[in-house]
Amino acid sequence: MKRPLLNCDIGESFGAWTLGLDDEVMPLIDCANIACGFHAGDPGTMRRTVALAVRHQVRIGAHPAYPDLMGFGRRSMACSAQEIEDLVLYQVGALDAMCRAEGSRVQYVKPHGALYNDMMADPVRLRAVMNAVRAYDPQLPLMLMATADNRASQALADEVGLALWFEAFADRAYEPDGQLVSRRLPGAVHHDPQAVVAQALGLARGEPLVARDGSTLRLQVDTLCVHGDNPGSVAAVKQIREALDGLVA
Amino acid sequence: MKRPLLNCDIGESFGAWTLGLDDEVMPLIDCANIACGFHAGDPGTMRRTVALAVRHQVRIGAHPAYPDLMGFGRRSMACSAQEIEDLVLYQVGALDAMCRAEGSRVQYVKPHGALYNDMMADPVRLRAVMNAVRAYDPQLPLMLMATADNRASQALADEVGLALWFEAFADRAYEPDGQLVSRRLPGAVHHDPQAVVAQALGLARGEPLVARDGSTLRLQVDTLCVHGDNPGSVAAVKQIREALDGLVA
Amino acid sequence: MKRPLLNCDIGESFGAWTLGLDDEVMPLIDCANIACGFHAGDPGTMRRTVALAVRHQVRIGAHPAYPDLMGFGRRSMACSAQEIEDLVLYQVGALDAMCRAEGSRVQYVKPHGALYNDMMADPVRLRAVMNAVRAYDPQLPLMLMATADNRASQALADEVGLALWFEAFADRAYEPDGQLVSRRLPGAVHHDPQAVVAQALGLARGEPLVARDGSTLRLQVDTLCVHGDNPGSVAAVKQIREALDGLVA
Amino acid sequence: MKRPLLNCDIGESFGAWTLGLDDEVMPLIDCANIACGFHAGDPGTMRRTVALAVRHQVRIGAHPAYPDLMGFGRRSMACSAQEIEDLVLYQVGALDAMCRAEGSRVQYVKPHGALYNDMMADPVRLRAVMNAVRAYDPQLPLMLMATADNRASQALADEVGLALWFEAFADRAYEPDGQLVSRRLPGAVHHDPQAVVAQALGLARGEPLVARDGSTLRLQVDTLCVHGDNPGSVAAVKQIREALDGLVA
Repeated sequence: MKRPLLNCDIGESFGAWTLGLDDEVMPLIDCANIACGFHAGDPGTMRRTVALAVRHQVRIGAHPAYPDLMGFGRRSMACSAQEIEDLVLYQVGALDAMCRAEGSRVQYVKPHGALYNDMMADPVRLRAVMNAVRAYDPQLPLMLMATADNRASQALADEVGLALWFEAFADRAYEPDGQLVSRRLPGAVHHDPQAVVAQALGLARGEPLVARDGSTLRLQVDTLCVHGDNPGSVAAVKQIREALDGLVA
Repeated sequence: MKRPLLNCDIGESFGAWTLGLDDEVMPLIDCANIACGFHAGDPGTMRRTVALAVRHQVRIGAHPAYPDLMGFGRRSMACSAQEIEDLVLYQVGALDAMCRAEGSRVQYVKPHGALYNDMMADPVRLRAVMNAVRAYDPQLPLMLMATADNRASQALADEVGLALWFEAFADRAYEPDGQLVSRRLPGAVHHDPQAVVAQALGLARGEPLVARDGSTLRLQVDTLCVHGDNPGSVAAVKQIREALDGLVA
Repeated sequence: MKRPLLNCDIGESFGAWTLGLDDEVMPLIDCANIACGFHAGDPGTMRRTVALAVRHQVRIGAHPAYPDLMGFGRRSMACSAQEIEDLVLYQVGALDAMCRAEGSRVQYVKPHGALYNDMMADPVRLRAVMNAVRAYDPQLPLMLMATADNRASQALADEVGLALWFEAFADRAYEPDGQLVSRRLPGAVHHDPQAVVAQALGLARGEPLVARDGSTLRLQVDTLCVHGDNPGSVAAVKQIREALDGLVA
Repeated sequence: MKRPLLNCDIGESFGAWTLGLDDEVMPLIDCANIACGFHAGDPGTMRRTVALAVRHQVRIGAHPAYPDLMGFGRRSMACSAQEIEDLVLYQVGALDAMCRAEGSRVQYVKPHGALYNDMMADPVRLRAVMNAVRAYDPQLPLMLMATADNRASQALADEVGLALWFEAFADRAYEPDGQLVSRRLPGAVHHDPQAVVAQALGLARGEPLVARDGSTLRLQVDTLCVHGDNPGSVAAVKQIREALDGLVA
């Protein structure tokens, strides 16, 4: 059995501002989604984050976003497909330069925040992101959200000629169709560490999830998304990591 | 005899704003110094400019600048050497992504505006720029200003392990040490097209220039810097190009 | 009869980039919608534009936008009501500082681009804009689009305690409900100067417009929106101005 | 005896990034130097910071900076006098809008970081800042650094027609001419809380300081600069405040 990779948003500091416990979480993860300057991550932060990932032999992913520093890339913007393609390309290239300087390369792409959500909701934007990744390097997989039915995105990826890595969340409740339960609803986020670890283990074993309405849901899980923004989330990553390592051993 | 290459700052539009007659001047030049987003050039502009350069088989140079859109990269900023290294890397990588998408690659680097001036005046900043270029790709030459005595920059480039392309100006008067005469002084810029063409031809032939004080000055000229920002300057590029082509033929 | 005021977006240059024929159009208009730095208009441009308006005794309006320089404020952004209120306040205050330095004051507010469209489409955003204007100075009117039925926005303005100035377009075709015909449809924009002047005169006289489906439509018109971005549009402003002046004389 | 006012840089968060213990330090200070968006402080942060100051009856100062979010306004930029005047005006106006919305007004101006240092070192930039403050509101004092000899800046302020508030530092060692000892030198910063309180008391009583070379130095002190960026500095502010209050009681 292949342990699902742990991916984490990282390198989200900017200039004088620090965000995230990057030093603590980097040793625990497999894939670092590194901010590329549009929602976070100035060039110096990007370079240091890449160096940290290299030091811990963590795969480096570009984490491009809408150009919205003030909103941390969390606000949807009405960008055209061409604009999205170009801004993803720009950010992937910028991060790859830091990788080259540190003896590595970008190994996958995962859009950030509102761009991620918009890409999951709109095939036109999904194709724009795919076009950017393929244009940069057709060997790079795109990381996106596993849903109950991935056929549409898989078909698009096949057409464009791109590999996909599907991610799931150990700390979030799911709707029957594989969407995350809205954070506005009770029970959307699992706060109990044991529940988080249990969901991680279940996803890793390929077991079905129980959705919000009690129905079951099976997700294709290449990678689990974890968080490194506070001591509690880092502790959770540690527990998930240990549980998954135990599973494989 | 090898004709010196003509290089030109280009791709300096941004979003809704247009600057420069890129379509007119691109067919006339050999090297396009393309803005990378920090002083000009949003991702879409960068991509279209790269495509235009590819169409006309023009070499693509990254034209990185200080992060100062409001000042068009013309205001010196007290960046540290590390900051300069990282911001150059970032911009070179971003432009290279556009090149990959258009079937090409960045082929050289020429800093813009205040960063160019600071690099010429300060060996610490020059080394920072060189470090960035070498870290990205040691095959990329750095374009910088030819002066009466290039030994210091050549020694630094040898140490870092980088090739240099020296550029001169056909439309500017020179000081005896090879610095440009300040624009605040009379006669700093040649406005007479014939004088410009004559200086271009002289530089191409390796003839000495007459400096402001009447002394002569010999410059190593790999490339001549020309301008495409208005119809007059484009006309001048055309004349220079024809004169140089005649020289070689 | 009161001639409707002519309002025009202006001061849309930024740093090294010039946009619009401000010197030509300013003498012809009554109200200058001046960009405030978020979609265009650096501090220097803002100050010079304010000074130009003062010189021509033109009313100064703040023209706030989403924070999107790259997209010229034309891309909708998913800002919260509070975010919109605060970013409008910020921009109005910034422009008012330039007015104070030039012996004047901001006299009204007209949102720009996507913020304008979003405000017309969404009462939550409209109220956010109104809250900002009222918080800054309850004497300032808000300029917005006249539609067939202004009751909802008027009721909101009454509740908030704000005056409204309704604007119409002399060069655009209308839908029966007072929306502009989409630019994607044929006939959306009147290119014939005579048709533009005729529509301006009709609107000024309070005559009904003929909508796209042949029905008639009556708009409350306090001001007409004109354009100064190219020689043709400036010429049209001149003709409209002369026609309206003739009407009143 | 009049207790010197305590002033503190505040409101230096930006978007998703938090900096400074604003809630803890605001109740302890008299003057809040609030970031205005160019080095820190998005519109929402500015508004909330102003509201916090109003709640604690703290004087609100505009804290304008060079346009350098990435460098937190700490990097000198080669801006012209006119550019400085305009960017200070812009930022003061933007903050004043937040004050109006919260029932207050900007009450003084203190430039930030590199702009502050450049203004202290260069009379041309100092005059530019003064011109901006005067143009906005001649009643607003400018806060600047007390040195051994304030005559030059006082003469300039008299000429421009502006009041000055001189500030000193309780936690910094001084050169004989009233410049701060460079942070690169040992002993530049007092880390012992007792030493800090002692220097604050001495400055408040108008006693001379002992400079680095053992000579004595007398400073005109209208206000003391304190810091709220970490728990230690907030504790120091508390001690200084109590000591000064004891002095006056």
